[in-house]
Amino acid sequence: MNLVLISIVLGLVAIVYGFVTSRQVLSSGTGNDKMREIAGAIQEGAQAYLKRQYATIGMVGVVVAAIVFFFLGPISAIGFVIGSILSGVAGFIGMNISVRSNVRTAAAAQSGLQQGLTLAFRAGAITGMLVAGLALLAIAVFFYYLVEVAGYAANDRTVIDALIALAFGASLISIFARLGGGIFTKAADVGADLVGKVEAGIPEDDPRNPAVIADNVGDNVGDCAGMAADLFETYVVTVGATMVLTALLLTGLGDLLIPMMALPLLIGGVCIVTSIIGTYFVKLGGGTNVMGAMYKGFLVTAILSVPAIFGAIWFALSGDMTTEMGGANLANVDAGASLAEEGTSSIAGFTGMDLFWSSLVGLVLTGLIIWITEYYTGTNFRPVRSIAKASETGHGTNVIQGLAISLESTALPTLAIVAGIIISFQLAGLMGIAYAATAMLALAGMVVALDAYGPVTDNAGGIAEMAGLDDSVREKTDALDAVGNTTKAVTKGYAIGSAGLAALVLFAAYTTDLAEFFPGLDVDFSLENPYVIVGLLLGALLPYLFGSMGMTAVGRAAGDVVKDVREQFAGDSGIMAGTSRPDYARTVDLVTKAAIKEMIIPSLLPVLAPIVVYFAITAIAGQANGFAALGALLLGVIVGGLFVALSMTAGGGAWDNAKKYIEDGNHGGKGSEAHKAAVTGDTVGDPYKDTAGPAVNPMIKITNIVALLLLAALAAG
Amino acid sequence: MNLVLISIVLGLVAIVYGFVTSRQVLSSGTGNDKMREIAGAIQEGAQAYLKRQYATIGMVGVVVAAIVFFFLGPISAIGFVIGSILSGVAGFIGMNISVRSNVRTAAAAQSGLQQGLTLAFRAGAITGMLVAGLALLAIAVFFYYLVEVAGYAANDRTVIDALIALAFGASLISIFARLGGGIFTKAADVGADLVGKVEAGIPEDDPRNPAVIADNVGDNVGDCAGMAADLFETYVVTVGATMVLTALLLTGLGDLLIPMMALPLLIGGVCIVTSIIGTYFVKLGGGTNVMGAMYKGFLVTAILSVPAIFGAIWFALSGDMTTEMGGANLANVDAGASLAEEGTSSIAGFTGMDLFWSSLVGLVLTGLIIWITEYYTGTNFRPVRSIAKASETGHGTNVIQGLAISLESTALPTLAIVAGIIISFQLAGLMGIAYAATAMLALAGMVVALDAYGPVTDNAGGIAEMAGLDDSVREKTDALDAVGNTTKAVTKGYAIGSAGLAALVLFAAYTTDLAEFFPGLDVDFSLENPYVIVGLLLGALLPYLFGSMGMTAVGRAAGDVVKDVREQFAGDSGIMAGTSRPDYARTVDLVTKAAIKEMIIPSLLPVLAPIVVYFAITAIAGQANGFAALGALLLGVIVGGLFVALSMTAGGGAWDNAKKYIEDGNHGGKGSEAHKAAVTGDTVGDPYKDTAGPAVNPMIKITNIVALLLLAALAAG
Repeated sequence: MNLVLISIVLGLVAIVYGFVTSRQVLSSGTGNDKMREIAGAIQEGAQAYLKRQYATIGMVGVVVAAIVFFFLGPISAIGFVIGSILSGVAGFIGMNISVRSNVRTAAAAQSGLQQGLTLAFRAGAITGMLVAGLALLAIAVFFYYLVEVAGYAANDRTVIDALIALAFGASLISIFARLGGGIFTKAADVGADLVGKVEAGIPEDDPRNPAVIADNVGDNVGDCAGMAADLFETYVVTVGATMVLTALLLTGLGDLLIPMMALPLLIGGVCIVTSIIGTYFVKLGGGTNVMGAMYKGFLVTAILSVPAIFGAIWFALSGDMTTEMGGANLANVDAGASLAEEGTSSIAGFTGMDLFWSSLVGLVLTGLIIWITEYYTGTNFRPVRSIAKASETGHGTNVIQGLAISLESTALPTLAIVAGIIISFQLAGLMGIAYAATAMLALAGMVVALDAYGPVTDNAGGIAEMAGLDDSVREKTDALDAVGNTTKAVTKGYAIGSAGLAALVLFAAYTTDLAEFFPGLDVDFSLENPYVIVGLLLGALLPYLFGSMGMTAVGRAAGDVVKDVREQFAGDSGIMAGTSRPDYARTVDLVTKAAIKEMIIPSLLPVLAPIVVYFAITAIAGQANGFAALGALLLGVIVGGLFVALSMTAGGGAWDNAKKYIEDGNHGGKGSEAHKAAVTGDTVGDPYKDTAGPAVNPMIKITNIVALLLLAALAAG
Repeated sequence: MNLVLISIVLGLVAIVYGFVTSRQVLSSGTGNDKMREIAGAIQEGAQAYLKRQYATIGMVGVVVAAIVFFFLGPISAIGFVIGSILSGVAGFIGMNISVRSNVRTAAAAQSGLQQGLTLAFRAGAITGMLVAGLALLAIAVFFYYLVEVAGYAANDRTVIDALIALAFGASLISIFARLGGGIFTKAADVGADLVGKVEAGIPEDDPRNPAVIADNVGDNVGDCAGMAADLFETYVVTVGATMVLTALLLTGLGDLLIPMMALPLLIGGVCIVTSIIGTYFVKLGGGTNVMGAMYKGFLVTAILSVPAIFGAIWFALSGDMTTEMGGANLANVDAGASLAEEGTSSIAGFTGMDLFWSSLVGLVLTGLIIWITEYYTGTNFRPVRSIAKASETGHGTNVIQGLAISLESTALPTLAIVAGIIISFQLAGLMGIAYAATAMLALAGMVVALDAYGPVTDNAGGIAEMAGLDDSVREKTDALDAVGNTTKAVTKGYAIGSAGLAALVLFAAYTTDLAEFFPGLDVDFSLENPYVIVGLLLGALLPYLFGSMGMTAVGRAAGDVVKDVREQFAGDSGIMAGTSRPDYARTVDLVTKAAIKEMIIPSLLPVLAPIVVYFAITAIAGQANGFAALGALLLGVIVGGLFVALSMTAGGGAWDNAKKYIEDGNHGGKGSEAHKAAVTGDTVGDPYKDTAGPAVNPMIKITNIVALLLLAALAAG
């Protein structure tokens, strides 16, 4: 268990980094009283929202924990509770750092771009390292306790179920947080824009707009807290699934079992260190290329991770990188073999080097996704410029071109993911895919840092505007924020891309579990079985339905905001005159209630769908077809969801930056007809990229994990 | 071969109906000189476009015919040529009827709503019956010739390949026609609206707008000719695939082989008669409920088809509805069996009654899809009204709500299709699914009639406007046209829904062919094979990429229209003053060239993708995985394409009717801010519903058929 202990220590390094860096950030200046007052209102609103959100989720969580306890026993229930609580904690910390750094970033931007960047990026890095560190610690400590303290074998069913339950807890909380936060932020944003920019003709972030504080609160609870919970979930599920797959598939490992199960943790641990080192390379170096500075940091992390991962594998395998593991037991790791033939294949296993190369595939894939996302959402390239140009001929053509780009943007990531699947599978079968996914997630600390930086700068701009700071400050925060649109899109593409790999790993866990729990049942997962097609279709439907619910929720809640603001304007003419202060808290409260009400039903969709499909198809066509349809549902949800999520997140980012590109003085600049059209596109893109799209990622995981738990519960019952 | 001869006679009945009814329509009055002049310009433009389109397609067709000839021999090449030519003829006839009926409908609407409805619907019915009749004749005559004259066994490879090649010809032409026509109609429509309604502030169909004739031409070449070619293709592929599957799967039929292969033709034949009867029930009956009149006609057809289909099956099986067919040879018709186990299952076959009930599933599914489509696109229900209401808060919320509805609208049709698959499969295995699809398509005559009616009324409205007829005439044509939006959406939902079933039939043909051509090859279609996942992902990508290309093409071509019209306005100030006539032909010519240029590359995507994927994966992971990935691609394209097509077609229809609903005086009516937002939504919906969405249907078929031909070519080579 040395490897696990080392991983725990490396996880603690992340926590220490977070602690030390947050002291640095908090010691920075907070500007003038006006700024502090505004920041205080944002902080208050965000805390009030998260409190109420977690109280609601808590109630759902208690019910689900009881169900897990009833069907799977106390240890799984504890796993579920740990996963949920830490997922919530990750979100809470992210929000807390964010609401304290925004005003400090605005203050720092008064001194210069580099100062603003340093402060905002450090704030992001704190969230990033804490997300990765907490996720690593959650799994590592729990695993250590179960194996070393409670004395279970590492591949004991109790341990496997507990790891899955831990992932379930993380996913369940994260879908609520992603969706609730996403609805909050976009309802406030869209509502504020509609009634402020469009109706009243006042600029964004104007303090006379009663929805302006809600809008800024939204950045923190959606883009920051929701995102942090989401990435926490992605990390736990991916690393956990790799460990579970190791336990299920590699049954002939002997003494290597524990090191091999701990290896994904160690990879996560060493990459925390490389991520921390990378953060110190995010520097402008004299120029003003903010994106370039970000890239420098990421590249350093990625390059350092290569020897680090090699070292981790080398250490876990005691320096033996070339002996093959697996063998006959790995039959269903091989391409041509199906469950029915398990054990008959003579395909050999894979070596430590194979795992290393597979991990490299994951690192390269991460780089490719970042690069592709920048191409589709950056202002320097064809996609964003084509949307900006289409804005010249009006609202309609802006939206048409935006939709065209959003559809197109799925192609390159899909091809990259497909290439990643093929190469890593050729290297080491399913374990290769699992290691590619694990290596992707190992960089989570750095990727989340890039993302969490965005809402901080966005808020900083809002505070600068509302506090009436000099225009030059706003210009600096705007420069920082433009990059935020791309980095936000990057994280979403990264999360959904890794979900594509993780879903294959989870599906393998599902089929392996099935063979273990129901050895006599001949489940036909062939595409020739119509119940497989039925499952694929129903699975692919889920992200559409889920996306629709998310979009509708934002539209409805934004409408409520518009009505509330209109009432406030009508009730007190002093607001527009600037003589009396609008009731910010009232709007925040309204959006809070709306978001929490709207998040419940869509979040339950992926929890209930697998259960309903299994029982319905079993009733119609027998248990074997029920399991076949359920398995197909799991892949249908990724096949459908990958495209929905990629198109929404990249498309939304492109719309947003097309508006920014016009605001930079192109195609007529601010106030032109093209700009008005671009504002429409941005509004459409808002719920696309920040509500419906990103929530698809936890949705995919939940569907898969619920299926695994259903199997365990059916086997136990 | 009696059944085939009867089918041929019934097919000729459709042609006779078309001939007789077109004489009735053409004998109707054509209004005044001004109307005739306008109609003449539209006619000229449409003919010029189709001529050039078919000339271009012809060149592609000759190359493909040569390739088919080289790899599959002369008979398949003849099949390909017949399929292509008749698909072109179907489109050409549809357009020719449409451009002659528009002006007559405008003239008839001067007498009353019923007169306008009768004329427009008859015009639609001519197209409908000719599409169904020509499709039926194409297969029946070719099959008769091959078996009776050329002397091949009905299940001879030559016959099977020839039927597949026939379907390929139909599909290839139809994707060009759908896409080229779709780009033409929407580029002209969007361009005319942008520069006319938005920039110049002149109403739709104002004769001063140089793009106005191009817009009306578009209705005929896109919504009419393109749609007719598409439905011709859908008919040929579905009925042909059912025959091919019968030949491939039911190897122990003996004397029943020919009757069973001819039965799908006979079902098509009897339903032509029920469709013709149904057309005479499309009457207002005193009220003004146009949609109700349409429903009456459809319901009569559907109800009469029940005994007609029963009679056809009864006749084909010589009255024996209860003896089981199939048996051991039907192993892979059964749920639990995979190819590997073929022949080992003891599942019995199915009876004539089972086929009858399966056909009923198809009829019910058609009714359900119509009902669901009306719910999502009709002005009386929540979806359209929610978009109209969202227009009050601006362009952005209109588009957000429209996208939400478009995502949501996939749910009920998918559930209906899934239920259809399960029930028909439970009844008679894959043959049940094939018969459900065949019964759906048997109603094509009636469904196309409902659809082809739309562009006629749309044009009639345009002519009434341009000729300066009394406002009451335009009101009547508008009432007729509003229903057209829904019926157009219905046909698309119907075509893509039937494609969902047909794709399963085509996939079964693929796997059966594979087992026959490569008996030693153990192809693993299980979801556990990562190459299957790769295929699913790449397949699901195709409709996204295709949709993106279609949307971009419309945007680009519409931009050209805007520029052209601006130039015309700038060059001659008399145009806006109404003293000089704009150069309509110049704009028509410009759109023609743009549409034809833009249609080529996207149309080749589904032709080339299966070939590239097969060879790429074979090179990487061997032939078995190449075939597995290719098979998965076929299902991926339907799993992805179904949702893309359903969401685009229903969403676009909903946007269009939300605008109409506002124009009827709701939410502020014409000219209000809500109306402006609704115009934006309508513009966005245009390429969604008329270009990208509907072309997905032939795209799915082509991918499948190319895979079948690739198999045959590989086996022959």
